[in-house]
Amino acid sequence: MLSFDPDDTGYLTELAGYVAIPSVSRDATPETMRAAAEWLAGQLAFADGRVVPTEGHPVVRADWLGRPGAPTILVYGHYDVQPTGDLAEWTSPPFELTVDAGVMRGRGCSDDKGPVYIVLKVAQAFLAQEGGLPLNVKFLFEGEEEIGSPNLPAYLREHAEELAADLVISADGAMWRPSEPSLSIASKGLATLDVVVEGADDDLHSGRFGGTVANPLHALVEVLAGLHTREGSVAVDGFYDGIPELSAARREEIGRVDFDEASYRTGLGLDEVFGESGYTTLERLWERPTLEVNGVTAGGKYTVIPHVATGHVSCRLVPGQRPDAVLAAITAHVEAAKVPGVRVSVRPDSGSVPAYTIPADHPAIRAAAAALEDVYPGEEVLLAVIAGTLPATALFEDVLGAKTLFFSFSTADEKLHAPNEFMRIPRLRQGMRAWESLWRLLAEGPHRLAPVTRPSADVPTSSERSTTP
Amino acid sequence: MLSFDPDDTGYLTELAGYVAIPSVSRDATPETMRAAAEWLAGQLAFADGRVVPTEGHPVVRADWLGRPGAPTILVYGHYDVQPTGDLAEWTSPPFELTVDAGVMRGRGCSDDKGPVYIVLKVAQAFLAQEGGLPLNVKFLFEGEEEIGSPNLPAYLREHAEELAADLVISADGAMWRPSEPSLSIASKGLATLDVVVEGADDDLHSGRFGGTVANPLHALVEVLAGLHTREGSVAVDGFYDGIPELSAARREEIGRVDFDEASYRTGLGLDEVFGESGYTTLERLWERPTLEVNGVTAGGKYTVIPHVATGHVSCRLVPGQRPDAVLAAITAHVEAAKVPGVRVSVRPDSGSVPAYTIPADHPAIRAAAAALEDVYPGEEVLLAVIAGTLPATALFEDVLGAKTLFFSFSTADEKLHAPNEFMRIPRLRQGMRAWESLWRLLAEGPHRLAPVTRPSADVPTSSERSTTP
Repeated sequence: MLSFDPDDTGYLTELAGYVAIPSVSRDATPETMRAAAEWLAGQLAFADGRVVPTEGHPVVRADWLGRPGAPTILVYGHYDVQPTGDLAEWTSPPFELTVDAGVMRGRGCSDDKGPVYIVLKVAQAFLAQEGGLPLNVKFLFEGEEEIGSPNLPAYLREHAEELAADLVISADGAMWRPSEPSLSIASKGLATLDVVVEGADDDLHSGRFGGTVANPLHALVEVLAGLHTREGSVAVDGFYDGIPELSAARREEIGRVDFDEASYRTGLGLDEVFGESGYTTLERLWERPTLEVNGVTAGGKYTVIPHVATGHVSCRLVPGQRPDAVLAAITAHVEAAKVPGVRVSVRPDSGSVPAYTIPADHPAIRAAAAALEDVYPGEEVLLAVIAGTLPATALFEDVLGAKTLFFSFSTADEKLHAPNEFMRIPRLRQGMRAWESLWRLLAEGPHRLAPVTRPSADVPTSSERSTTP
Repeated sequence: MLSFDPDDTGYLTELAGYVAIPSVSRDATPETMRAAAEWLAGQLAFADGRVVPTEGHPVVRADWLGRPGAPTILVYGHYDVQPTGDLAEWTSPPFELTVDAGVMRGRGCSDDKGPVYIVLKVAQAFLAQEGGLPLNVKFLFEGEEEIGSPNLPAYLREHAEELAADLVISADGAMWRPSEPSLSIASKGLATLDVVVEGADDDLHSGRFGGTVANPLHALVEVLAGLHTREGSVAVDGFYDGIPELSAARREEIGRVDFDEASYRTGLGLDEVFGESGYTTLERLWERPTLEVNGVTAGGKYTVIPHVATGHVSCRLVPGQRPDAVLAAITAHVEAAKVPGVRVSVRPDSGSVPAYTIPADHPAIRAAAAALEDVYPGEEVLLAVIAGTLPATALFEDVLGAKTLFFSFSTADEKLHAPNEFMRIPRLRQGMRAWESLWRLLAEGPHRLAPVTRPSADVPTSSERSTTP
């Protein structure tokens, strides 16, 4: 077994420096994004870590390929983070890692800087204590995950041979709950769009023009309200097309999950849960697609009739749904609304992602379960679904022919994407132990991953590189 | 007749200095607001112009009471302006008065800095050329008109005796169109409120929680959509209570107005007009109340379920409607919606204003019509309605017992409250001529206003003041 630093202070100090870089992919300057990428590349110096320019924010790449004959894995994660949202709602500055009652708080600490940091420390410990890693590892960290990975597809396709691997292990993709170890066997897809309603050329005074022209905001709320039934189903014809009926076996499996709906509800500050009728909360979360209106941009608290009103909509998709078909169905539904006096249009965003699955009996799932049992002895490993979207997974399968194992040690309750994002500190160490175990298990023994991929045809190994002028 | 500067350059230069003070009552610092007030007070030095602190932004006061036995008028206007809105939509910087093809453009130049400037120049010209004004004039300019005049009521009540007048003449309240002179015999009331929908304690990740909890924004759009029928009527029970039926005579009168609906529509960039069925566009504008959703604040273009969603709503009221009853009716309507899983509340703003009217045969309307006929010979004076709201008018009637004559030389098509607000330059000079004529007509001759108010019981006249140490 590797020995890790018994005191968290050093880890937290180092991670604080990483969290301090406000790498908000939606808003940050190229310099800020590059600083976060350089931080990662510095940590990966042992494997020739480097910032690789791409369209958009750069990727970080590294390779340690010193185990010929051993399997090759590609470790994936991201260095970009979500916007802070309303600063007034943060109890500490979002880019100052703040330790508080067993957790660390800060934007990105759970999604995905902390989980990526775990892998870096494990790889460095292997190198320092055993002179090398137990298998061949390629590292790929992107800076655009939170904006839908718009440039990853092209990068992957152009570097498919260089990135070839027997398995992708994602340091992104939170576990279900801290109370029980879990592995994710699926993640939801994502399709987003704007509904745009346009009226006059300019904003109009609501007194001097009110009542004589259609208000784009009235039209927008009518259209948006028409996307759901009052019972919580999506009212768009064709939205659910292609989804297999939920089997009795899967319903039973989900029913066995130790899920306390009352504490789920009260933990969110809610009086009741709500969702598509005919399904339990966990079924809704794991097995059913959703359509959420995420925001409305129009006017403000002024006495105006806004001349344009925009609704931002996102759909989380399940296996069987085609993103393009979903977007087309919504477009047809909205266009059928025919609201008088305004122009209504649907603007689908590019970068849709289909849902992703990995079979429960895949060798990687078995090895990962064994690794978790090492770290959490006596606890059953839950096979869960990530209700979030990890756009890279479908791509890895498509371009590299490799399945993706989610192996993050953040959990889905850590206010990802919201103010006061946090991560539980003990899970840093648990994660290090689990990654160590997983790599050893994939490298040898009953869970050994059959190596198909040659570490690299063209790329020199790190040791070769380091002796090349 | 007074002689005014034959060249506009001097006027425009001076007015540019006033427009350059960004006195946005909603956002500006107290220092900025005070600077605008001081600018006005400086122009009123001949009448002991002074900035008077009040709750909120100060008022500007001045008195010229040198005509004992002549009627006394109170000139009202405001020095605050609307926010700029989206700067990207302005074709020139909003606080730089820009001259362009016969118009001047800049925030506040039409509402209400230009129209107030006209009065200042007329008063100064009377003083310089005739040694005094034809009647007694009190000046009251406030800095909170664009936020609903929250502190004017208390100020007026506390200074009712000092402000006593036979007539209020408002330099605010745009004319109907530049194509024909008009007088306003009514203005609409205003009642505003927020509809607030609250869900979880924090914003939630739309993947990790989507479909399992009610989305406050879904509830909000449903509630807001329920405020109107598809035919454009307000669907709130009781909203129209108390409004007398539109008489055939008034319909006929409105029908005679030279109103080109096609150019109204195309001037706004619209394919069609829209409004309450059973009424023409001008009837909707002048005679019918409205309910407009002015903005929605919730979330943004992120993958979140916002934990709070707010709709900003304003109602323009007509005579017969009671603002409190309207707010109560909307509250009852919204509360009856009973959307599951969220908390819906209505938060009425304080400062509602009932609709205001002045009889068409009021002496002030007759004098004003005669003044307009002097400036626009041969043109019929249209009796119109200001579809906007001038909160001070009801107050003046209530507290001072005086009717208000609207006598502004801006027009309702000058993009008030929107980007690229402008005012037509020739109307500065036309306004000066008309105010001169109006004051002379009110002071003597067949339209003389019967003086009831003693100029002042307690306040020394300007000339007395100027000789007092």
